[in-house]
Amino acid sequence: MLFNDLINFIRKEVNRGLKKIPLPKNPKYLYDPIRFILDGSGKRFRPILVHLSGRSSETDPNSLMKIALAVELVHNFTLVHDDIMDNDYMRHGKPTVHSKWDNSTAILAGDGIFAIAQILLCSLPNRANKICQFFNQTTLELCEGQALDKQFENDLNITQEQYLEMVEKKTGALLGACAALPAILNNQDKKTIDQLSQFGKAIGKGFQVHDDLLEIYGDPKKMGKSLGSDIREGKQTIMVIKARKEFPKEWELIISNSREGDNLSVFRDFFKNNGIKRETELLAKKYFSSARHSIKNIKISNINELNNFVDLIEKRTF
Amino acid sequence: MLFNDLINFIRKEVNRGLKKIPLPKNPKYLYDPIRFILDGSGKRFRPILVHLSGRSSETDPNSLMKIALAVELVHNFTLVHDDIMDNDYMRHGKPTVHSKWDNSTAILAGDGIFAIAQILLCSLPNRANKICQFFNQTTLELCEGQALDKQFENDLNITQEQYLEMVEKKTGALLGACAALPAILNNQDKKTIDQLSQFGKAIGKGFQVHDDLLEIYGDPKKMGKSLGSDIREGKQTIMVIKARKEFPKEWELIISNSREGDNLSVFRDFFKNNGIKRETELLAKKYFSSARHSIKNIKISNINELNNFVDLIEKRTF
Repeated sequence: MLFNDLINFIRKEVNRGLKKIPLPKNPKYLYDPIRFILDGSGKRFRPILVHLSGRSSETDPNSLMKIALAVELVHNFTLVHDDIMDNDYMRHGKPTVHSKWDNSTAILAGDGIFAIAQILLCSLPNRANKICQFFNQTTLELCEGQALDKQFENDLNITQEQYLEMVEKKTGALLGACAALPAILNNQDKKTIDQLSQFGKAIGKGFQVHDDLLEIYGDPKKMGKSLGSDIREGKQTIMVIKARKEFPKEWELIISNSREGDNLSVFRDFFKNNGIKRETELLAKKYFSSARHSIKNIKISNINELNNFVDLIEKRTF
Repeated sequence: MLFNDLINFIRKEVNRGLKKIPLPKNPKYLYDPIRFILDGSGKRFRPILVHLSGRSSETDPNSLMKIALAVELVHNFTLVHDDIMDNDYMRHGKPTVHSKWDNSTAILAGDGIFAIAQILLCSLPNRANKICQFFNQTTLELCEGQALDKQFENDLNITQEQYLEMVEKKTGALLGACAALPAILNNQDKKTIDQLSQFGKAIGKGFQVHDDLLEIYGDPKKMGKSLGSDIREGKQTIMVIKARKEFPKEWELIISNSREGDNLSVFRDFFKNNGIKRETELLAKKYFSSARHSIKNIKISNINELNNFVDLIEKRTF
């Protein structure tokens, strides 16, 4: 099977799995928004990584799917809550839950999705303890990452190092878990679990740095939102941190003028002409290479598929 | 040991257990509010019930304490999120998290506490699967209860039956779990688990009906908040539902005048003079009796302590 066909097949199965999660009709206040969230057109990168990492003859396919679904659920739970905290009104071209309904509805829908993820994982017939333990430690790390992100907002002293620590928790931790959990399910040795966790974490950091690029250089139509808004609202992305450090005066001028209206092209030119775009692309590339490196000598059979997954993430345009 | 001394002893141990949960110092955005929440002066009724229900020679005390703490954590997680949704600014004489900090901080602190509760439960050496399963089903029921509560706000068609369904989920489910989880830990038969669950659920309904009484007839100083505000803001308490059904015109008049200012004494006189206070007291009493009845023939040794717990809840004044 070609890799793209494999990815599309897994994505379809994951979407089918999400639809099969038994959700009562009532109370509508809770389950209508949950249905709306799970019907979304997410790219399902995380459950796809779970399936790729766990594809081997020993794996129980039902258990693997439960982990994949739980990971996608917890990802959605954090998105719904983060969108409230970050005042984001659109995601992938759809209104966010708190903008379609209200904050209370979105808080509760997130909580419900988190509980459903737990129920799925507890029903694993083998090694549920260890898997739940790793999964919830990861969730707590996601909360820490979001906390750092909120702390850093409008803080002009944030360094690239602090930013990358935040990204490792906010995006790296869950991708690390996606790669590592199937190895825990299959009772593999600690070294293999660690290698896979490092693999996922590195992808996560590359993913986020790449995301900061797309936030400026992406196609607004494909991204499903207006670009540059995070920066205008004071978000410290990797390019902003570099600009502030390397060109403090010039950047201050850009930012003070940017409040007057949309000026995406000014951002684009500034980052490009000052080499910041290039530096950021190289940083993303470094993390994707590090991901490939961390599974070089790993004791699993489908290294090729995992490397193809890195390509997929590296080349994404939205 | 006298029952009161026993309760105080358990409460102290629970508070000590909560303080011993390892919380990192950073990120402060996440852990400062969590520390503030766990330092609170809650009455710890739920973890006390866990300990009373599980007190027997076979029980592993460490496991029992983990369940007790997890239950108290999930209770606090729901309080923090509910306080945002309900715009409540004070609880037990202290500012709520979203009023001391802001909504984003409170959403994230609640999420973090929920994850910590899961981490505690996953570390149980025996029957963690079954316990986590029951625990998370219960959490989802709490979400359903809160969803119904939000749906019912300002809905003038809510019946007493609908109200009691909401209360069973919002308050009954967790107290039911407090009583039942230790029996699951001790691998007791299904009948005993069900009896204990019914016991806790009935206490929960009595508790909530009694709470609606305290919201009007309690001592504002002891309650740590102004009374009657829920009703002024359109909350459908059991007494409001009875007033609306039995005295629709008179009640409408009371409510339309109440918007002009604080008139707790008007509410008090109305419910008392029209027999609604008495009816509500009898309803609470019915649930507490039903709780005692459901464990009449149960196969555990400390029925007396469980009955004393019902007395404790029935006689609470704040």
